[in-house]
Amino acid sequence: MAIVTLTTDFGYAEPYVGVMKGVMLGINRAITFVDLTHGVEARNIRQAAFALAYAAPWFPEGAIHLAVVDPGVGTQRKALALEADGQFFVGPDNGILTLVIARAGKWRADEIANPELSLHEISGTFHGRDVFAPAAAWLSRGGVPLEAFGPPVAGPERLAQTHAMRSAGNLIEGEVVHTDHFGNAITNISRELVEQMERELEPDDGLEIIVGSVTAPGMVKTYSDAPDSTSLWATFSSGGAIELFVRGGSAARLFGLKAGDHVEVRFF
Amino acid sequence: MAIVTLTTDFGYAEPYVGVMKGVMLGINRAITFVDLTHGVEARNIRQAAFALAYAAPWFPEGAIHLAVVDPGVGTQRKALALEADGQFFVGPDNGILTLVIARAGKWRADEIANPELSLHEISGTFHGRDVFAPAAAWLSRGGVPLEAFGPPVAGPERLAQTHAMRSAGNLIEGEVVHTDHFGNAITNISRELVEQMERELEPDDGLEIIVGSVTAPGMVKTYSDAPDSTSLWATFSSGGAIELFVRGGSAARLFGLKAGDHVEVRFF
Amino acid sequence: MAIVTLTTDFGYAEPYVGVMKGVMLGINRAITFVDLTHGVEARNIRQAAFALAYAAPWFPEGAIHLAVVDPGVGTQRKALALEADGQFFVGPDNGILTLVIARAGKWRADEIANPELSLHEISGTFHGRDVFAPAAAWLSRGGVPLEAFGPPVAGPERLAQTHAMRSAGNLIEGEVVHTDHFGNAITNISRELVEQMERELEPDDGLEIIVGSVTAPGMVKTYSDAPDSTSLWATFSSGGAIELFVRGGSAARLFGLKAGDHVEVRFF
Repeated sequence: MAIVTLTTDFGYAEPYVGVMKGVMLGINRAITFVDLTHGVEARNIRQAAFALAYAAPWFPEGAIHLAVVDPGVGTQRKALALEADGQFFVGPDNGILTLVIARAGKWRADEIANPELSLHEISGTFHGRDVFAPAAAWLSRGGVPLEAFGPPVAGPERLAQTHAMRSAGNLIEGEVVHTDHFGNAITNISRELVEQMERELEPDDGLEIIVGSVTAPGMVKTYSDAPDSTSLWATFSSGGAIELFVRGGSAARLFGLKAGDHVEVRFF
Repeated sequence: MAIVTLTTDFGYAEPYVGVMKGVMLGINRAITFVDLTHGVEARNIRQAAFALAYAAPWFPEGAIHLAVVDPGVGTQRKALALEADGQFFVGPDNGILTLVIARAGKWRADEIANPELSLHEISGTFHGRDVFAPAAAWLSRGGVPLEAFGPPVAGPERLAQTHAMRSAGNLIEGEVVHTDHFGNAITNISRELVEQMERELEPDDGLEIIVGSVTAPGMVKTYSDAPDSTSLWATFSSGGAIELFVRGGSAARLFGLKAGDHVEVRFF
Repeated sequence: MAIVTLTTDFGYAEPYVGVMKGVMLGINRAITFVDLTHGVEARNIRQAAFALAYAAPWFPEGAIHLAVVDPGVGTQRKALALEADGQFFVGPDNGILTLVIARAGKWRADEIANPELSLHEISGTFHGRDVFAPAAAWLSRGGVPLEAFGPPVAGPERLAQTHAMRSAGNLIEGEVVHTDHFGNAITNISRELVEQMERELEPDDGLEIIVGSVTAPGMVKTYSDAPDSTSLWATFSSGGAIELFVRGGSAARLFGLKAGDHVEVRFF
């Protein structure tokens, strides 16, 4: 069984995702589908890019990731098939693969342009079904090399400023990239960067994390280590980034945190 | 692997869908399940009928479609197994298959009455689990002919007025059948009918689409072709019907469109 | 294909469930996943316990049920692998398996402690991915006996008062355990207990069911047997318990019923 994951902004109540699966099963019967999320906000490419980059590394080699958040459907934006570190990604060339490419040791992208690997008729409004699903299904069968899809794409579209940065001697600046179902706010500030600065600065007292007018006084190992259930604390998320939370509660609701919020880590 | 799709009004948070899958796996281990939608409004047979008819054609021959929106569960309404153009459909005889039958070149329906193809004990409240899931699973194994389920049903229940119609020389009357996750309003006015009238009338100026007090001034090829993001436009949907939309926004929210709204296409 | 079901409080929009599936597919490619529910209220172990116990019996022998509602993640709470009546259950030792164990003829639980059957690195916040998913996947491959996971656990954690009880000669006291998508209120008062008391008491007039200030005057066979669509009635649910409903409507909305509500059945 091949593995095809799906990431879209189609929501859960529409038959659109099922239709893409139907098209894929017409090309390859031996697919295990895994829905990553269909709850991406309508047309929010950035949110999809983060979700995809979070989830993909947990899948085995050869997995195919289909990502369709496609506000430019029907325009001249390209369709992409990407290989990155042994996995495959299919989606519009609109930045949705930015973080996957940024992290990849080795990658190669091709335009999906070969009409034999798409449906015969291509609608103006649903390339998820007509272009991306068939491409994913052909990849899942094996035996179709990336170059069969079309010419290589040297510079896929990228989203700006997806990474946190060291902005001063003792400061990291990043952002909240997602508030999850529990109200935890996941940032783009990686454990790696935090630990590198700790090694370098050997701070006396540790660090604090500032988001808007709230400050988390430090990092703990797990949710239960926070001393109370009313104040904001931080931990390293399961994806290896700073995550702001309230023990047993919702940081998003209690402190109004949301995707896009500016976050600072200050060592002292 | 056999393919079984599921369409219900059970919502996403209930274990009912999982239980139907469990029952099916007890009969056939080699099934790939595809959820079409479980977001049908409670007891809304019409909505389910449109979703099913939209999605089914994109599945390969032999696919089995299980549809359970069943307000009459436990009453005398029949249970149906239908073959239509090489695919199979299982559900209550309450009109849920109206559009599938209307479109089928060739179909045959049988009542599900053979107790050996249902669970031993049949509850009064969940035939999805006790009757329809087993029937779908037996069909998915192959080797069980339709006539094994029970006597043929010559006239399955049909919903009234599911199709748009030419109501005057230059007019089509139809309805909004669904507003989707993006706020696009899909109608039951087919591209076929529109193009047929265009050929016949050779209209000078094209057409306009009127829904309530709003008028879409014409049709464009894809969402991005609409000149602005505040007015209503139309395109042919991915299902081949007129779809009303607002570029980058929600037509449903901006103009209050909803399923059941009367729609007119006027050629001039 | 092995069967692995999933029950969590992760919601539907997060990639967490997909990530657990990715981890499992890395261990065993031949899994059919069935989502039971990811709509458990955040950290509501009791709700998950009822959903799991409702659904599990409908799956074939050998099915593996992964249940992750885990507010104590990262603390000293144990991780459990349980065999009960030929099925397997994996989850935190926090009471989530209470009802499965209560019903089991024969069961055996082992702590998941063997690091070779978990991911190499175990985060402080997501044991669903790092511990429970790998355990379920190893069980799904077969050939890994329960005792390979760790020492037996004689007394897994149990939730209090999950069963309805006869509290007086002619009274049963229980609770609403769930209000479903249709607004039906499912209780923990089993058909068995009701029928046993009917046999014993031979009541003249039958029974009534009292919840808060509302009384359902009796039990009917199916929803359509209720005489009107404004008053509360009861039927035996598809899970074999008393279920309160309004014909064609929502009992939860009309009468404000919710999980935890005290319910009395009075024979007279």
